[in-house]
Amino acid sequence: MEAKKPVILITNDDGITANGIKALVDAVRDLGQVYVVAPDSPQSGMGHAITIGSPLRMHKVEMFDGIESWECSGTPVDCVKLARDMVMHAKPDLCLSGINHGANHSINVIYSGTMSAAMEAAIEGIPSIGFSSLDYSFDADFTIAKKVVRELVIRFLANKMPDHTLLNVNIPVVSEADFKGVKICRQAQARWEENFDKRTDPRGQDYYWMVGKFVNMDKESGTDVEALKQGYASVVPVTIDFTNHKMKSWLEKEWGQIVE
Amino acid sequence: MEAKKPVILITNDDGITANGIKALVDAVRDLGQVYVVAPDSPQSGMGHAITIGSPLRMHKVEMFDGIESWECSGTPVDCVKLARDMVMHAKPDLCLSGINHGANHSINVIYSGTMSAAMEAAIEGIPSIGFSSLDYSFDADFTIAKKVVRELVIRFLANKMPDHTLLNVNIPVVSEADFKGVKICRQAQARWEENFDKRTDPRGQDYYWMVGKFVNMDKESGTDVEALKQGYASVVPVTIDFTNHKMKSWLEKEWGQIVE
Repeated sequence: MEAKKPVILITNDDGITANGIKALVDAVRDLGQVYVVAPDSPQSGMGHAITIGSPLRMHKVEMFDGIESWECSGTPVDCVKLARDMVMHAKPDLCLSGINHGANHSINVIYSGTMSAAMEAAIEGIPSIGFSSLDYSFDADFTIAKKVVRELVIRFLANKMPDHTLLNVNIPVVSEADFKGVKICRQAQARWEENFDKRTDPRGQDYYWMVGKFVNMDKESGTDVEALKQGYASVVPVTIDFTNHKMKSWLEKEWGQIVE
Repeated sequence: MEAKKPVILITNDDGITANGIKALVDAVRDLGQVYVVAPDSPQSGMGHAITIGSPLRMHKVEMFDGIESWECSGTPVDCVKLARDMVMHAKPDLCLSGINHGANHSINVIYSGTMSAAMEAAIEGIPSIGFSSLDYSFDADFTIAKKVVRELVIRFLANKMPDHTLLNVNIPVVSEADFKGVKICRQAQARWEENFDKRTDPRGQDYYWMVGKFVNMDKESGTDVEALKQGYASVVPVTIDFTNHKMKSWLEKEWGQIVE
């Protein structure tokens, strides 16, 4: 008797027509029963946004050769919520998000729709992995990325992963010969420094384009940014407990647990 | 000679016309040089979304009796970025976000535009506090909330706070007699359980409204949800290092630091 296949939900933030989600489906389609629920338009930078003030649309589409697929008008987080409640009617065994066209290492985890979809799944108790390639081009080469995806998903499915497991995986742009493997890392302390580009429209009104420069403030070793520079794919386990426990102890000492 | 007044940036996610931001400005206007940069429309549930695919608009408005104020077409996170780069041209000493009409305790920290604005400030090295009242009505009574705001902001300004300090403050709906004070807490482990309301539009097409039920899975004490139920305002220090360090150690043990 064949064991029941694991149920895998796939989503992304670049939209259902992106090459990255196609590569992700291709990499794991034989490893389980795969469903795709993904945005019908690009949703990069949407973070953990949800759609509460307007209704959502969802349509079944033929995209991935016999895999049940839906496109949704909402954000990546909306897709995960809709998938569970209206498509799968049950918790999948695993959620995969990506492969994102562009880096989601370090602080990008908080801006990224790819990672927010994976985080939403983890909050709902679905072990989850977000995959991103540092190649942000439309025609990004996902050869190495697909191998990393497959390797990690097989490990994930073979092990009993702890509850609320969430991994942020980034894949460097290197040749197969220079690819070093997969490294467990911590998030680099970094930020984006904005420099808005102010312009004037034909009616004489000002408008602003956001232009950012990535600043890595982290000089210590063991970070995802460092591993990627060395030619590794980086794996950062991500928390869904946002309490700063160190600062909590500090405040309790300085202020007292109850502030009168 | 008078000491230089601290510079305070105020934003929110309910929009610049909400009563909550007016209450926040009123509570601290004499404590520093206050600037307001806030969304020109409600942005609840926007999480850490940023606007990268379209330009942003920003207009100076007269709203708060002599306080320099700008409304912005973008998300709460956009407001913080624009404020620093295009309005203040420098890092403020403190960023305050809110007062939100509605709870942002426990897992809501990740969906909330109020908390995402505060988090963005903390990422940029600006100590920051997000304030939310459990009263989500338009005409919420902010009497107790304003006292909590003032008390915490005075403490914040009197102490040298650690870098990247970020507090999530929620205020219960209780009478002044029943209000117990302010308690340092950790984030309750909770989630939203969705139950989409599927409807059909006049053209025969399906659409979906997101309807959620809050589920607190946390049975241990010390959480924000518990403190609020007891009549305390909850203060949860929030991290901007999203690495799950416990799971990192587990993975390094199970998989090895470098996965061949």
